[in-house]
Amino acid sequence: MSKKLWGGRFQAELDQLGADFGASINFDQLMAEEDLIGSLAHVKMLGHTGILTADEVHAITTGLEALQTDLAAGKLQFSTDNEDIHMNLEALLTEKIGPVAGKLHTARSRNDQVATDFHLYVKRRLPKVLEQIRHFQAVLVKLAEENVTTVMPGYTHLQHAQPISLAQSFLAYFNMLQRDYERFEFNQQHTDLLPLGSAALAGTTFPIDREFTADELGFQNLYTNSLDAVSDRDFALEFLSNSAILMMHLSRLSEELSLWVSQEFKFVELSDAYTTGSSIMPQKKNPDMVELIRGKTGRIYGHLMSLLTTMKGLPLAYNKDLQEDKEGVFDTVKTILPTLKIYTGMLQTMKINQEQMYASTKNDYSNATELADYLANQGVPFREAHAIVGQLVFKGLQEHRNLQDMELAELQAASPLITADVYHVLQPEVAVERRNSVGGTGFKAIKTQIKQAHAILANED
Amino acid sequence: MSKKLWGGRFQAELDQLGADFGASINFDQLMAEEDLIGSLAHVKMLGHTGILTADEVHAITTGLEALQTDLAAGKLQFSTDNEDIHMNLEALLTEKIGPVAGKLHTARSRNDQVATDFHLYVKRRLPKVLEQIRHFQAVLVKLAEENVTTVMPGYTHLQHAQPISLAQSFLAYFNMLQRDYERFEFNQQHTDLLPLGSAALAGTTFPIDREFTADELGFQNLYTNSLDAVSDRDFALEFLSNSAILMMHLSRLSEELSLWVSQEFKFVELSDAYTTGSSIMPQKKNPDMVELIRGKTGRIYGHLMSLLTTMKGLPLAYNKDLQEDKEGVFDTVKTILPTLKIYTGMLQTMKINQEQMYASTKNDYSNATELADYLANQGVPFREAHAIVGQLVFKGLQEHRNLQDMELAELQAASPLITADVYHVLQPEVAVERRNSVGGTGFKAIKTQIKQAHAILANED
Amino acid sequence: MSKKLWGGRFQAELDQLGADFGASINFDQLMAEEDLIGSLAHVKMLGHTGILTADEVHAITTGLEALQTDLAAGKLQFSTDNEDIHMNLEALLTEKIGPVAGKLHTARSRNDQVATDFHLYVKRRLPKVLEQIRHFQAVLVKLAEENVTTVMPGYTHLQHAQPISLAQSFLAYFNMLQRDYERFEFNQQHTDLLPLGSAALAGTTFPIDREFTADELGFQNLYTNSLDAVSDRDFALEFLSNSAILMMHLSRLSEELSLWVSQEFKFVELSDAYTTGSSIMPQKKNPDMVELIRGKTGRIYGHLMSLLTTMKGLPLAYNKDLQEDKEGVFDTVKTILPTLKIYTGMLQTMKINQEQMYASTKNDYSNATELADYLANQGVPFREAHAIVGQLVFKGLQEHRNLQDMELAELQAASPLITADVYHVLQPEVAVERRNSVGGTGFKAIKTQIKQAHAILANED
Amino acid sequence: MSKKLWGGRFQAELDQLGADFGASINFDQLMAEEDLIGSLAHVKMLGHTGILTADEVHAITTGLEALQTDLAAGKLQFSTDNEDIHMNLEALLTEKIGPVAGKLHTARSRNDQVATDFHLYVKRRLPKVLEQIRHFQAVLVKLAEENVTTVMPGYTHLQHAQPISLAQSFLAYFNMLQRDYERFEFNQQHTDLLPLGSAALAGTTFPIDREFTADELGFQNLYTNSLDAVSDRDFALEFLSNSAILMMHLSRLSEELSLWVSQEFKFVELSDAYTTGSSIMPQKKNPDMVELIRGKTGRIYGHLMSLLTTMKGLPLAYNKDLQEDKEGVFDTVKTILPTLKIYTGMLQTMKINQEQMYASTKNDYSNATELADYLANQGVPFREAHAIVGQLVFKGLQEHRNLQDMELAELQAASPLITADVYHVLQPEVAVERRNSVGGTGFKAIKTQIKQAHAILANED
Repeated sequence: MSKKLWGGRFQAELDQLGADFGASINFDQLMAEEDLIGSLAHVKMLGHTGILTADEVHAITTGLEALQTDLAAGKLQFSTDNEDIHMNLEALLTEKIGPVAGKLHTARSRNDQVATDFHLYVKRRLPKVLEQIRHFQAVLVKLAEENVTTVMPGYTHLQHAQPISLAQSFLAYFNMLQRDYERFEFNQQHTDLLPLGSAALAGTTFPIDREFTADELGFQNLYTNSLDAVSDRDFALEFLSNSAILMMHLSRLSEELSLWVSQEFKFVELSDAYTTGSSIMPQKKNPDMVELIRGKTGRIYGHLMSLLTTMKGLPLAYNKDLQEDKEGVFDTVKTILPTLKIYTGMLQTMKINQEQMYASTKNDYSNATELADYLANQGVPFREAHAIVGQLVFKGLQEHRNLQDMELAELQAASPLITADVYHVLQPEVAVERRNSVGGTGFKAIKTQIKQAHAILANED
Repeated sequence: MSKKLWGGRFQAELDQLGADFGASINFDQLMAEEDLIGSLAHVKMLGHTGILTADEVHAITTGLEALQTDLAAGKLQFSTDNEDIHMNLEALLTEKIGPVAGKLHTARSRNDQVATDFHLYVKRRLPKVLEQIRHFQAVLVKLAEENVTTVMPGYTHLQHAQPISLAQSFLAYFNMLQRDYERFEFNQQHTDLLPLGSAALAGTTFPIDREFTADELGFQNLYTNSLDAVSDRDFALEFLSNSAILMMHLSRLSEELSLWVSQEFKFVELSDAYTTGSSIMPQKKNPDMVELIRGKTGRIYGHLMSLLTTMKGLPLAYNKDLQEDKEGVFDTVKTILPTLKIYTGMLQTMKINQEQMYASTKNDYSNATELADYLANQGVPFREAHAIVGQLVFKGLQEHRNLQDMELAELQAASPLITADVYHVLQPEVAVERRNSVGGTGFKAIKTQIKQAHAILANED
Repeated sequence: MSKKLWGGRFQAELDQLGADFGASINFDQLMAEEDLIGSLAHVKMLGHTGILTADEVHAITTGLEALQTDLAAGKLQFSTDNEDIHMNLEALLTEKIGPVAGKLHTARSRNDQVATDFHLYVKRRLPKVLEQIRHFQAVLVKLAEENVTTVMPGYTHLQHAQPISLAQSFLAYFNMLQRDYERFEFNQQHTDLLPLGSAALAGTTFPIDREFTADELGFQNLYTNSLDAVSDRDFALEFLSNSAILMMHLSRLSEELSLWVSQEFKFVELSDAYTTGSSIMPQKKNPDMVELIRGKTGRIYGHLMSLLTTMKGLPLAYNKDLQEDKEGVFDTVKTILPTLKIYTGMLQTMKINQEQMYASTKNDYSNATELADYLANQGVPFREAHAIVGQLVFKGLQEHRNLQDMELAELQAASPLITADVYHVLQPEVAVERRNSVGGTGFKAIKTQIKQAHAILANED
Repeated sequence: MSKKLWGGRFQAELDQLGADFGASINFDQLMAEEDLIGSLAHVKMLGHTGILTADEVHAITTGLEALQTDLAAGKLQFSTDNEDIHMNLEALLTEKIGPVAGKLHTARSRNDQVATDFHLYVKRRLPKVLEQIRHFQAVLVKLAEENVTTVMPGYTHLQHAQPISLAQSFLAYFNMLQRDYERFEFNQQHTDLLPLGSAALAGTTFPIDREFTADELGFQNLYTNSLDAVSDRDFALEFLSNSAILMMHLSRLSEELSLWVSQEFKFVELSDAYTTGSSIMPQKKNPDMVELIRGKTGRIYGHLMSLLTTMKGLPLAYNKDLQEDKEGVFDTVKTILPTLKIYTGMLQTMKINQEQMYASTKNDYSNATELADYLANQGVPFREAHAIVGQLVFKGLQEHRNLQDMELAELQAASPLITADVYHVLQPEVAVERRNSVGGTGFKAIKTQIKQAHAILANED
């Protein structure tokens, strides 16, 4: 008979390679804290319902608390022989308090236990993610406030389109992060569901009190179906999907920063604290963090795809395939939290070259729309105005001159409706300040956005 | 000079292959209805704010309504020369009402127009998805009600674990679908954001009234930042992610049905209406729909991965890459709506072989837990009880007998604590009915679940 | 009894929505040509082996050829009622030649038929892909030849690193494309396997001659196992994986071009034939093709992920899930062929601003490595040389001057080993021309690369 | 000035969180062996070309060999402060031999060094993968040999289709694995390319001899373009793509085994060495390895998607994003090697229930095709024969009888052409043995396949 806890019907031991391959202790030990917390609540419930005696509850509780202390002190030794964190902690508890440890597993199976630990793990990380997003948003708002009148080229197709305020750009990211925030907040709803008490798959005959356990653990809701409870990983998929979208947003910001620090743009300079050099090329100052974070987008997309694939086509209820659910989530937590912190610090310490940004808008044709609008306001149908300006641009490109550099006579040759006031209109800052439609880049419109952003942040604190 | 609307500064025409490759009219015509609705609201706002005259508004409105009639009648002819649905409809409008058509594009760019159409498209499909989920859930609850006492094997690792009620299984899927429902509901929040009025990227100098347009179009909220508005596709990513999780759930149900209709299981029989035969093998009755839906899980995962990839690392604001955002969403709508409808019909017409399910639980060892619990209740430590039963199972396997087939004397040889009442406990239906912990498979626990399910469904109607 | 061909054991008709959902004719009609070619070879084999009579073969062959003519003339009408291309063509053949049409299906099932069509489809497209890659490579070599001495900044981390020849960059892409070529060539090996004759899953009792059919169809090899033959889609996965890597390469080139056409870089100008304008902003010249191709990378990644997901966990042999195998492949063909053609044309017509590229290397510190090497050659340990130059760079940045702009005395203050000849070394063209290690950017090294590239291209023609 | 090696132009130290986040030593230490091997070859080349003196070469070589000894003995201590394996080993070498260690980095940059290490890592693992595939194939052939006449149901749509030989199934997997083998073999071509000597991105001015280094390291070919060399990761993508397809194949086998060990199928029994029990349910024998491997398919798909995403849109040459290239490959190696070994052992020790398989073919309608063919051979058009048999099947289903259980008179009522010899034809073993078309399941056809399989295996040894 096999020596394993479950070995009654087995005649031979596990293949060693298979045992090592199947063991999860090397990664699920990250949930040791959650496993102990979950067990403490479970045993308290077993006492409350009279399933265990007060003495049993006391013995087990004392043992679990001792394990918590050992864990915090880094003194617990885990072993692959005990497969996973649950069996390891059971073995360690037995060492501490003897066979009464076995009673902890009354009315509980590893299936609902692991699901509980995993829920608890994510439930405890979501507030940290939300908090980091808020910190990052606060920095974005601050940067927006400082740069309401910083004029820069606005791009579409990476071509100069129309001048905008730099604040508009920071606020665009503020809004992306706000949706991320809302998604992670929603994620709490399906994380905050307690599976414990579902046992192996079918519930239990013991007179347990699941509401009691939920209260102990701070869960708002119970899974209401045991089959679903032990095989659901929606909360993890939501977390991965939300993280993928968050990283996508940051990859866009990274792309922009990567451009902005290039010799060609020189719009910003990152602090030495967030860049590295080259062992060969002495002049290099590489935006490593920016690129690494952009690169890690792939990592998170991969984790999402992994879990979706693993879950595809699995019959109910628990299958060993589900052991693959955790590493991607753990790694995602380990990725997005520092990513958000680093970005927060990096933007706070970034030097903005406002002159270079402004100069760049003087040396392009991004005021062409202004000229077309100017003509349209004089009654020229917009399509005709567009064509007139298009031809002036073409002429300018040939002669290496911008619109504001052309003489009035030249402009009037294109359209006699143009008068000297056109030069005012052609100034980039004028183009920016006039776009005060709701959400626009006009200085007034931006101030409104900033006020709203503050309201959002205040609301949360 | 190029003949294109935007051709002022261009000297040569587009390469034909490139023009065809870049044109989106072959797929974005699916948004023709939304484009017209959006334009009608926009022109009404232009009138309301005095940007256009009443006459202009009347002319354009009449033209757009005529196009709506033509579209409904299938009479609109689109052309690749006009690139996309927006340019096509502009050209058609111009045909109908002449150059005043051009005024419709005042204070609007294709960037905010396409974003608006796409939002509107998803916004109008979400209620349909929600409705189909509700229909499907209703059938699941009905099946649960009809099968409270239908006893079947419950599986973990696709091995008989403990007997359960078939209703428990239907209710597990009800709960998955409920989370799907909640995700698509949440999806509305970020879909119900109007980009219109953000113009190309920076807002507009025209005195537009975005709240007015939003009211006209039934949008609850405006994007509050123009850069974000024209480059955000979060709502589409949420839709794809939610659809991927939905399909994952259905792939699990499909996997189970695929097993249940096999000769080996024979648990259910699908209606002829949802199966097909073979042109070679006259006996075949293939669960085609079940498999096709499982297969289409890959399609939806792919769409999600596509859009995530496309968005990765894009600088703000609009880039042509974003043209790739729509086909996956359109195809997802075209996939999940019929999938839900077909599943609803398939389950309604499915014949359940209750005798076969029950028989299957009599011919296995899924009552082993009951025997272990029986011994534990007599005071045998559970680990010991587990070992005793494990060895009885091993003996049974050798002799091709189940636990309930063993004589009392044999059972007592394993443990003298066993008495004749054990045969009652070993009955599958007894094992099921006793699991009345919250969410368990006990008949009473299931009836509570059904009541809750009805409350959820009633709440929504 | 159902009216379907396979309807003997069925009492009810298919649900209409399900029938439409399950039908593949709307996309698998793309294989109509292949289906007819395959049938012609099959019937010839049936005649050759005496399974059908000469008259039967003649009748069927004549009918199939008539269908080929109709197909080429666009005269075939397909119907969803007939599910797929195979049943549609069978029905059309029966219309043409009567019941003898049924004999065509002797010793063949739809399972091996569809696999054959799909193999044939890919087999016939691979040479087109290979050819387009070669055309593209030829343009890259030509551009390299024209730009051996075009000096530009070489980048790492999007920072100026060391000056390089523009030819080096074109040749980097030549090499990527060469590996793509080799992958698609290898792809032929597993595509060029004929499944026909495997029947439904188990082979057939008819005395067929599979080698004969293979010869007829130009297949080099047969699948040697019938179960494998009808359920293998490796060749399609290879095609999608190869296409994903190809698109990844092109996304990198697109990213570079997108930068190079920006106002900040101005390194190249794309022909009007491959760019578009804006309906609002008259100055815009957007690199639409470049961006669209970059965006389509996501589409192809998605197709790969779709098929991998669909295939995951499918039991042998054919399952309806496999119907999902084709659309992604068809769309990939439809994407990569024009992509390659457009890129070929776009690069051919692109104007290179060599002065701007060169100027950019004069206005940076990318000659810093040269100065460090200069010092190292004088015996200064490299780490020390690196530090000396690093500090000169820092000084330069403060004073907005480059290394070559500093006076000799200043340089000597940093290291007395520096003499006047340093100004020669600091010239970008000198830095480039001296890097003649194998594969380096030195002009000689590049000429060797060009020679090798020509040899590769010549070898293939 | 920063204390980093590259710190000349830096005034501030790296942010600590960023430094930890950016460090790769915690995973790239897996390439320590390759890094030392690469350095040994590089220094030998530097001596051979006279770039370093014999004394320098001797000192460095001795130091590197000492590090090799320490590494093998597990005595090397790595530190996050030194970022990556390259800087760590440089620091350790400097400790051992002093400043001459710095000369090792002559004519080499981390960009070509890390690429070399990574190539070498994959190059050294590919033969192990190939070897494990061969071992697995050998077991499959052995099982096929032992089961030529083992008759079992063949499935399509998981429905009994036609009886087959179990050997046919093993040989199907042999063929899949053979294609996997060929893909990994092809993978060697693009792995066996040496980047060393490409320096940072542009080659070097030192008179290096790249062929010499390649010979030393056993590389067949050099990258011929330095930009390509430092930024290419095709070999890693090929490895991931090949591994994804391999895992897909194994997921299919896992799915089948998962069914075959179920109570419903009982076709095979896995050794206790590859299964586990339940701590709750004493009867459970769970096919954990089978499921875990199926689940790990998701992991590998995820790694593929990660790297594809990370590479998308990266400008040349090296970017920090590329640091994300390795973990997925390392984990894939760590996954597929044990997976193949475990599968090999699991199949070797698996007990096949031949009686149960055979019995299953007697209790179905999978001989229906035989009856249709029987009628067709009597001259009944196949479509009519199909219909006749379809109706007999329907009758049988109503009366719970199989075709062979019907009396001759009953069969003749359906078609008078049926005579007593039909009962021979209806035997499953007869159905199997007659399918001797090339690749078919007939016993003779299978023996041919086995012979071919042996030839393939012999060829490689």
